[in-house]
Amino acid sequence: MQEIVHEIKSWIYEASERIRASIASNQLTVCTKSDRTDLVTNIDKETQDFLMTKIKNFDPTAKVLGEENNQNHLTDFSGTVFIVDPIDGTMNFVLEQENFCLMIAVYEEAKPSLGFIYDVVKDVLLWGGPSIGVYRNDERIDAPANKGVAEGLLGVNAGMYGTNFAHVREIGNMALGVRMSGCAGVELIALILGKRIGYISNLSPWDYAAGGVLLQTLGLKMSNISGDALNLSDREFFVAGTPKAYEEMTRLLQKDEKVS
Amino acid sequence: MQEIVHEIKSWIYEASERIRASIASNQLTVCTKSDRTDLVTNIDKETQDFLMTKIKNFDPTAKVLGEENNQNHLTDFSGTVFIVDPIDGTMNFVLEQENFCLMIAVYEEAKPSLGFIYDVVKDVLLWGGPSIGVYRNDERIDAPANKGVAEGLLGVNAGMYGTNFAHVREIGNMALGVRMSGCAGVELIALILGKRIGYISNLSPWDYAAGGVLLQTLGLKMSNISGDALNLSDREFFVAGTPKAYEEMTRLLQKDEKVS
Repeated sequence: MQEIVHEIKSWIYEASERIRASIASNQLTVCTKSDRTDLVTNIDKETQDFLMTKIKNFDPTAKVLGEENNQNHLTDFSGTVFIVDPIDGTMNFVLEQENFCLMIAVYEEAKPSLGFIYDVVKDVLLWGGPSIGVYRNDERIDAPANKGVAEGLLGVNAGMYGTNFAHVREIGNMALGVRMSGCAGVELIALILGKRIGYISNLSPWDYAAGGVLLQTLGLKMSNISGDALNLSDREFFVAGTPKAYEEMTRLLQKDEKVS
Repeated sequence: MQEIVHEIKSWIYEASERIRASIASNQLTVCTKSDRTDLVTNIDKETQDFLMTKIKNFDPTAKVLGEENNQNHLTDFSGTVFIVDPIDGTMNFVLEQENFCLMIAVYEEAKPSLGFIYDVVKDVLLWGGPSIGVYRNDERIDAPANKGVAEGLLGVNAGMYGTNFAHVREIGNMALGVRMSGCAGVELIALILGKRIGYISNLSPWDYAAGGVLLQTLGLKMSNISGDALNLSDREFFVAGTPKAYEEMTRLLQKDEKVS
């Protein structure tokens, strides 16, 4: 376990040097994907290629699921699977040059083994897994306080909040405030460090895989908004939180389903 | 001008050391004011007292308008007025230990003279005024690109976005995304540095005074949402942006007024 942790950290730090250099040189090629707000840059693609090469050299039999370069679907989760998001929060990367993350998860036989979320500009790496615990850079961390919704801040997806989809705005109004950073990694780091009581969004597997390993290791809760386990396949409406806040949130998120 | 700039910077850095020490020592006394989301801590109050003492020693005739300690109203803006927010984003200070700012503005005969916004944790100080230009720490900065709403991110107040108050959600949907940080200073720094095309919120004078000096110095636009100059007196619905985005936003914000 130590060897693979050491390897993955070295990839993350090396990739991040390139990402930081690209910000400094100010030479980005930005393209849109599904719509005008779904961006990809040459750095997303190059970082994913870099990580792919590292993974294949380290373990030629491993499978990879990742946001870019047509690696975004996987049906067979047997053996070792790496789930990679080279730049989570590409819009922020392009427009803010901060508030984006590099994320890597490792699954073994479809079970969470390791997660790494790196806030590149803040230089905060959360990493760990069920067999080793969770760390912030070099320091081991415990689960955050088990606060309810009314005791903290909620990270939310703007669209779901704006339309009150599945009572999301009502949940936000129960909280001490809502925050929108535009980056799942930033929100999941905040949740793990106790700066949020929950996070509700619409996410793809590479958005929550790494954070999910860490959340579960610490006893935090996550699922789709119907309460089912996330399937690592499609984009899903996602909810995560402290055990107390998760229970309060899912009660409202599932209110209409239960009535019908 | 150099003397007062040097003085105010020294107050900001000294106050920020105390604020950082309070985070490290983890001893905060938190009270609510008007409602459960309107917080004040012993550090807000102590910082405002500290700044008051510094201001009075520097200029015994100056008037002070500030968020805490019953200094929150001023009718006579003749002479020199300091407008102070010891901790803008107190909720973030308490719950996130980041994303809060210390802000000081100086007005001379009711005209903007100097503004300082300090992001304490990031150690980013934006400062300047009409006669000296705008600086980020030691580096002089120019106005950001004059982008329209559809070309960038919009900082918004959650309540106004959620209820589509004055078409705010529609404006948000025109942008590449909306962001909610819970701190006016953070949003105004982002706007000044070109990371936002605009910011719409409900603000008190100490929330926008310092940022307003810097915005106006750089040729950015701000007003209340009816297009009137902000009055430095009451809480007002606030809009600021690049000239292009400001014009697009105010057209929608004032749409209903103009129909009636």
